[in-house]
Amino acid sequence: MTELMNRLAALAQITDGDGLTRLFLSPAHQRAAALVQTWMQQAGLTAHIDAIGNVVGRNGVPGPKLILGSHIDTVRNAGWYDGNYGVLAAIEAIRRAGNLPYGVEVIAFGDEEGVRFPKTLSGSRAVAGIFDPVALASQDSAGITMSQALKTFGGDPDGIPAIARDPAKTLAYVELHIEQGPVLEAKNLPAGIVTAIAGASRYQVTVTGAAGHAGTVPMSMRRDALTAAAEFCLAVEATARAHPETVATVGAVTVKPGAPNSIPGQVIFSIDLRAPEDATRRAAAAAIEAAFSRLAAVRGVTYAITQTHEAPATACAPWLQFQLATAVETHNIPAVHLPSGAGHDAMKLHEAMPQAMLFMRGDNDGISHNPLEAINAPDTQLAVEAFLHFLTQLAEEPTP
Amino acid sequence: MTELMNRLAALAQITDGDGLTRLFLSPAHQRAAALVQTWMQQAGLTAHIDAIGNVVGRNGVPGPKLILGSHIDTVRNAGWYDGNYGVLAAIEAIRRAGNLPYGVEVIAFGDEEGVRFPKTLSGSRAVAGIFDPVALASQDSAGITMSQALKTFGGDPDGIPAIARDPAKTLAYVELHIEQGPVLEAKNLPAGIVTAIAGASRYQVTVTGAAGHAGTVPMSMRRDALTAAAEFCLAVEATARAHPETVATVGAVTVKPGAPNSIPGQVIFSIDLRAPEDATRRAAAAAIEAAFSRLAAVRGVTYAITQTHEAPATACAPWLQFQLATAVETHNIPAVHLPSGAGHDAMKLHEAMPQAMLFMRGDNDGISHNPLEAINAPDTQLAVEAFLHFLTQLAEEPTP
Repeated sequence: MTELMNRLAALAQITDGDGLTRLFLSPAHQRAAALVQTWMQQAGLTAHIDAIGNVVGRNGVPGPKLILGSHIDTVRNAGWYDGNYGVLAAIEAIRRAGNLPYGVEVIAFGDEEGVRFPKTLSGSRAVAGIFDPVALASQDSAGITMSQALKTFGGDPDGIPAIARDPAKTLAYVELHIEQGPVLEAKNLPAGIVTAIAGASRYQVTVTGAAGHAGTVPMSMRRDALTAAAEFCLAVEATARAHPETVATVGAVTVKPGAPNSIPGQVIFSIDLRAPEDATRRAAAAAIEAAFSRLAAVRGVTYAITQTHEAPATACAPWLQFQLATAVETHNIPAVHLPSGAGHDAMKLHEAMPQAMLFMRGDNDGISHNPLEAINAPDTQLAVEAFLHFLTQLAEEPTP
Repeated sequence: MTELMNRLAALAQITDGDGLTRLFLSPAHQRAAALVQTWMQQAGLTAHIDAIGNVVGRNGVPGPKLILGSHIDTVRNAGWYDGNYGVLAAIEAIRRAGNLPYGVEVIAFGDEEGVRFPKTLSGSRAVAGIFDPVALASQDSAGITMSQALKTFGGDPDGIPAIARDPAKTLAYVELHIEQGPVLEAKNLPAGIVTAIAGASRYQVTVTGAAGHAGTVPMSMRRDALTAAAEFCLAVEATARAHPETVATVGAVTVKPGAPNSIPGQVIFSIDLRAPEDATRRAAAAAIEAAFSRLAAVRGVTYAITQTHEAPATACAPWLQFQLATAVETHNIPAVHLPSGAGHDAMKLHEAMPQAMLFMRGDNDGISHNPLEAINAPDTQLAVEAFLHFLTQLAEEPTP
């Protein structure tokens, strides 16, 4: 498995900035795509770069296809494994599987992170047939449109609709990915089967009280927006704890006027709420709003909530979860099921085909989107072997 | 009293920026000082601008002197009345008092706010004989030293020690000032007698937990620095409420990394703690630290506290408070006593002589350091008349 670790290290050298920064359709993305294309060819696949910039390798067997993949774009100053691991592990599993009796594609998606343009998952949307051409007019921070960048890259904006896969000719999408969280490490397990990609809601909350001089307004006469927001923040946390598999985070906070000698008059903060079941997420959102309403009345402050993002939960196909579990157990790994709190390309492929994900344990508390992201070589060996077993098994039982 | 309101409006036009911005030793300060000097002369005083830039008017009567005053520098985008009111009201009271049988000085201090240089209360420190010449080397944001600015203004850095008043030749310092808080307005009283200028402590607190992905770390595995800081913030508030006449404020907050999809790993916030009794303030500070220690242990976070400021409480002289109370009651205003949460020139004069302050009600919830700062004309009339009564009364009973 040294070869896979070596390839991950080599791919991580392809960057446009300090550390690993490889944005969609950038020069680094182009160089990385070319290298991945070569590795696909060495694994026996016929490989090309498609109209939206995905690298696509195929084994040439006719009939419904199993699609494997992940992404090779990164956030700024990224870790080495997010996305990249899933692509190279899939290529390695295909190489070791030899001649499979069914059609296989490996796809290295180019825009999972959505860092360069104000759009995400462009590559997987295109393959799923749900790419909105309006996105082509979106601009990066330098004013370059996605359409211009795609042409420079060698892509073909007009050719995007044609790469949508026909659901009738597709078996499933299966993605191997690092967990990006601490659950498997805490359970001391190298891999786990994803139940669903959590649905997510984001909100911006503005709490308005009364600003004042920190020295001259008695405590009993204050309407401090920050102490009110502190209670709101704790209510968000308590609500998430009270709902199963739900997480909620206040991550960004702005305090106005924000001076040590001023009582805060206004606080603006974000809420990120996720749950693998949409009903749970909706119930948690309602409980949070009810708590805010109650707390605001006691505090004499007002508040406004604006929803800024909404994505439904995406359940992974039970029959694929079952086959992944069997594959994992064959390698003496207890099959643990867990939700994915982060988004993945699988969310979009879901629109056109059954999908499932296998998570591999991260080291270092599952830190991700950070140079400290880590995995260990024995885990990569186990994960690739379990994935290889899944591929072979699927050959014997290719339909749900 | 229209004349006083007109003068306040005229003085407020003297600014170096948008709104009212009149920093120490600035061109606006120079023009304002010249105008105040003229008004002092019209009130029958001999006036000059001293070595540190204070405007000083004297009635020429020999013997121990009563000093009246406040400041004519302002914060940026200030209100019209903070400081300026006390200077012009003192001049008005002196004018109306006519020939007093004891020595009187009115001083318009030039650096109460400490906005231009990283030093405060330079004018009152000099008069109290506690000006540290090291301050002369401090620089404004343009790199100009206080010494250079003072020379440009027409002051004399070398002459500062000579303006220190001899305590043996000084009766007291009495300052009239707007309250800058909502207490008198809430009590429906035009004026109040200050018991003490609150002592103040400031701290910077750093809470460190563990950053993480907002989607992938279960609630039970988090060490969220922000939810911990929220509990800290509420403990600060609860502690202040539990200690008499104590106020505590968390005013500035920085959350890192500060992104909606990241669990906060670190939060840095300020605490401003004030009380009119130093023992109370120390007890409150100890209670806050004890609460932090307890909360951090439960949350699994660490914290560090750095004290950034410490000023002891300054009690106003009881005999002067008594005479101010009598004066106020003579004008059918119930004598209410209240602490000053804000700092004033009187804090520094205190080092050399007995001092006291009379607060006048602010309108508009006592908003100050803000263009919305407001007072009403009938209050200014009452306050000046009470102050005039105090001056006349003191003439009859000039010693403690």
